[in-house]
Amino acid sequence: MPDRVRIAIDAMGGDFGVETTVSGCALFAQKHPEVELLLFGDEGKLQAEVGKFPALEDVSRIVHAEVSIGMGDKPSQAIRNGRKTSSMWKAIDAVKQGEADFGVSAGNTGALMAMSKVILRTLASVQRPALAGVWPNLRGEAIVLDLGASIGADAQHLVDLAIMGAAMGSIVLKRDVPTVGLLNVGVEEIKGIEEVKAAARILRGIESSHLKYHGFVEGDDIGAGTVDVVVTEGFTGNIALKTAEGTARQIGQYLRTELRSSLMSRIGYLFAHKAFGALRQKMDPRRSNGAVFLGLDGIVVKSHGGTDGLGFSGAIEIGYAMVRNGLQTKIRETLTEAHEIRMTLEPPGVA
Amino acid sequence: MPDRVRIAIDAMGGDFGVETTVSGCALFAQKHPEVELLLFGDEGKLQAEVGKFPALEDVSRIVHAEVSIGMGDKPSQAIRNGRKTSSMWKAIDAVKQGEADFGVSAGNTGALMAMSKVILRTLASVQRPALAGVWPNLRGEAIVLDLGASIGADAQHLVDLAIMGAAMGSIVLKRDVPTVGLLNVGVEEIKGIEEVKAAARILRGIESSHLKYHGFVEGDDIGAGTVDVVVTEGFTGNIALKTAEGTARQIGQYLRTELRSSLMSRIGYLFAHKAFGALRQKMDPRRSNGAVFLGLDGIVVKSHGGTDGLGFSGAIEIGYAMVRNGLQTKIRETLTEAHEIRMTLEPPGVA
Repeated sequence: MPDRVRIAIDAMGGDFGVETTVSGCALFAQKHPEVELLLFGDEGKLQAEVGKFPALEDVSRIVHAEVSIGMGDKPSQAIRNGRKTSSMWKAIDAVKQGEADFGVSAGNTGALMAMSKVILRTLASVQRPALAGVWPNLRGEAIVLDLGASIGADAQHLVDLAIMGAAMGSIVLKRDVPTVGLLNVGVEEIKGIEEVKAAARILRGIESSHLKYHGFVEGDDIGAGTVDVVVTEGFTGNIALKTAEGTARQIGQYLRTELRSSLMSRIGYLFAHKAFGALRQKMDPRRSNGAVFLGLDGIVVKSHGGTDGLGFSGAIEIGYAMVRNGLQTKIRETLTEAHEIRMTLEPPGVA
Repeated sequence: MPDRVRIAIDAMGGDFGVETTVSGCALFAQKHPEVELLLFGDEGKLQAEVGKFPALEDVSRIVHAEVSIGMGDKPSQAIRNGRKTSSMWKAIDAVKQGEADFGVSAGNTGALMAMSKVILRTLASVQRPALAGVWPNLRGEAIVLDLGASIGADAQHLVDLAIMGAAMGSIVLKRDVPTVGLLNVGVEEIKGIEEVKAAARILRGIESSHLKYHGFVEGDDIGAGTVDVVVTEGFTGNIALKTAEGTARQIGQYLRTELRSSLMSRIGYLFAHKAFGALRQKMDPRRSNGAVFLGLDGIVVKSHGGTDGLGFSGAIEIGYAMVRNGLQTKIRETLTEAHEIRMTLEPPGVA
């Protein structure tokens, strides 16, 4: 654990700009006055905003960046226009240079992923990075990955996802040995694509002190909270995430419409408003804001672009927990351990 | 449109057996006294049940079947043990023999799919059948497919799904030209797998009087109701469906817990109970029960195994609407039309 955690913030990212990111940083700094925040972005704008929060002023340093990556910029465009000059690039590069322990951005996902890959590179044995999120469920929370960092996965990549997700799960969920499920379909005859079946065979062989393989899980197991870590490739993961978000919005809308539909229901709402407040809080996406890029040689957290200060501070919290609890070391250890077990199971040249 | 619609019912399928299927048939027969129902299953049990519903007795005929396919049977096992002897096989075979216009079963999905493929075969130009469901959304309902009949899809299969889904959509949603979206992920750099991109290129070229291609949609567009027909391959479709079901159950559980949490909220619930009743009805899975196997040379409807009589009658309604509105003819016409357009765009030997 580093003495003083240093955090690189892309202060220009997100739908609402510096006002949101700086207020998020201020909330975070209030709770963690021992950290150091490096704020990358337009110096003038940042000075004006940071000046509003003395507690943040004490623990932060502004680093000017001329360029801001637009929310609609294509990744290739972002790298072309923002290489070395943009707040996003500079924030990630601070992680690479060892000036910060992790980076946070609410900027556009594609650009952040592309820049992170270019600057930080993947860990030696990991093919591609993954995007992992914290998903609330009926038993608490779970880690779900890949939420869309890459498309398609062979068995080895699914196993890497399981290992990295379990490392993150052990920290976020405070579990010694998180349970891991492979997302699959339940129709018997076609139970799973070959890659998923092959990953299951490998995971069954890994008797790790860092993860416990549960077996296949289906889509409805995500909400039920059947396992601590749900593993799938990025296309399906992204669609599962957005389908769940859409369903939550749909039910919320039904509920609002029905509760406004008559005088009686309006009165009922008044009586039960605390219950609805609690429900709203449970479904508040800010509570689980902050997805982590796993498999890179450095930690980068992606905050939702449309979140507010509270949500942004939550994304910083996620990265902070990762660093404090040695995420990268855990990932490296489990990858090595799993690799050794595979070598025993399938010595090279034998398969 | 056939003079008198004849329906083959696998009366033994489902979690609750003949009591549920027969009461579902009775509900249906009450509304449609002009149909003929062929009930396949254990003659003794069926006679006892049907005897309770005079209106059903008048329009139904019981055909004895010795074997019932178990809900946990593997498809290969089901075909081995149930070929020609099971209620499921006999119901589908009645469609093949022209004795019924469509079949309905609440039995296990894998077995029903395997038997339907063996008995009915796919339409000449369709590679594999698909399972299509009616999905409630904020603008009404949409058709979503494939919900898990097969895994993976090349561009041509995705186009077939679009065409078949649009044919079903035109009937269920009563739209002349349903809009069709291809499910995809929103991250710019990796926007979509090659197959999805290629399918989009083909669909853009199809100026059909039967469907209008909208473009890519994301997971949250399903709940929002952005398009009439959402197309994806079966692995992702199955996981999207079950993730949405899990999310709905999760929110329902949150809501129940919160409303019971205090005296005030219980009182509120009493005042607003009509609103909650309406919400419950909107989210009632029985309202959208009944998924249709598309692409077979005959119509087979899959009812949810855990539904009740009302839900089962809904599944019969779906098949009935398909037959009355000439689903198979619509599918054949659009497939031919699309094929001709493709020939113009990409004459054989030129690509």
